[in-house]
Amino acid sequence: MVAPSLTLHRAVVEHLVRQAVYQRLGRPMPRTAAAPNPLVVNVSARHCHLTQQAVETLFGKGFQLQAFKWLYQKGQFAAKETLTLIGPRSRVISNLRILGPCRSLNQVELAYTDAVALGFDIPLRLSGNIAGTPGCMLMGPAGFFEMKEGVIRAIRHVHMHPEDAAFYGVKNGDEMKLEVGGPCAITVERMLCRVDPSLKLEAHIDTDEGNACNLQPDTPCTLSR
Amino acid sequence: MVAPSLTLHRAVVEHLVRQAVYQRLGRPMPRTAAAPNPLVVNVSARHCHLTQQAVETLFGKGFQLQAFKWLYQKGQFAAKETLTLIGPRSRVISNLRILGPCRSLNQVELAYTDAVALGFDIPLRLSGNIAGTPGCMLMGPAGFFEMKEGVIRAIRHVHMHPEDAAFYGVKNGDEMKLEVGGPCAITVERMLCRVDPSLKLEAHIDTDEGNACNLQPDTPCTLSR
Repeated sequence: MVAPSLTLHRAVVEHLVRQAVYQRLGRPMPRTAAAPNPLVVNVSARHCHLTQQAVETLFGKGFQLQAFKWLYQKGQFAAKETLTLIGPRSRVISNLRILGPCRSLNQVELAYTDAVALGFDIPLRLSGNIAGTPGCMLMGPAGFFEMKEGVIRAIRHVHMHPEDAAFYGVKNGDEMKLEVGGPCAITVERMLCRVDPSLKLEAHIDTDEGNACNLQPDTPCTLSR
Repeated sequence: MVAPSLTLHRAVVEHLVRQAVYQRLGRPMPRTAAAPNPLVVNVSARHCHLTQQAVETLFGKGFQLQAFKWLYQKGQFAAKETLTLIGPRSRVISNLRILGPCRSLNQVELAYTDAVALGFDIPLRLSGNIAGTPGCMLMGPAGFFEMKEGVIRAIRHVHMHPEDAAFYGVKNGDEMKLEVGGPCAITVERMLCRVDPSLKLEAHIDTDEGNACNLQPDTPCTLSR
């Protein structure tokens, strides 16, 4: 396993600087600077979550996923390992990234543009709620693994610690909006709040949403009810 | 050439029905029903515009584009003919649709997801404003045509007749917002108004924007300043 990344998200640095500057100037903090935590917005490119059993079928007995890059949520990582996804019309996506650690179910998260390219018609689902969704075939270096179900577009969401939820005045399951500025500005409505003490404040949008607004590290983003 | 399509856009039918129902009931019309024209929202998938000279280089001397499907704007069509686009990293998009009739310049319009797949870094431009943009190679059945420039992401826009502009209180070059409802609701900001007596009211978004909000024929859309 690699050491946790020391690279900070730009939003984290900006938040620290903003708080320090307002404090130094003795000025009242604007609302965003007064937030308990920085708002990090990340694009989730297509990826999958796997059980340890699926990993072993695809990569070999006893195989353990290796961390390639640590994600913003504690303990989560993009694995070095990738897969080939074979869709219902024999079209293929290569280099599908696996996120670790292993989970109790197998799930592939695609953007609708990916689904169109593959010939899928995939439903919008809350991560983990995969009953009745389409499946696919996964191919790894040691074998194939057939997923009977689990291919979804994940509902856009915001991970939040309870102190973030209190600041924004929302609770688990509420919906918020994310205003993204810049030349391709969009307001992403219906961002689902997922509140848990284990989570850090982070909004997740998919590549269609991220490319629609051309999200860059310095793109201004505001989260509100 | 095929005959103009008799298929009506759902928004056109809904607008007619709405106006008739309110009139029949003798009720005051809500603002959307009172609009002079229905709001048609269409997704522009990747496509190109070509000069007649480029068409002849790609398809042969004297070749004329054939209409495959008439578009909502009068006289505009998707051609039967498609091309292969070869990007800067030798990656390829097959079946790139040509829109007709021919124009005075060559231009390829891609979504950012397409550009990422090809390995392009393309700028956001108003259609027709292509100075200094990247080029590409096009391949047709009769030969290659090298575009020195002209690969862009087209700025999201609304075609409007002056009577539509008057109704919405905007002028050519203004920006509006398009609220798209449904489970993947987004508000598309900064829709550029293109006002001309030759145009019909139609909002154009690209496939990233269209897939981000999962635009379907029955998705509710509202245009406002």
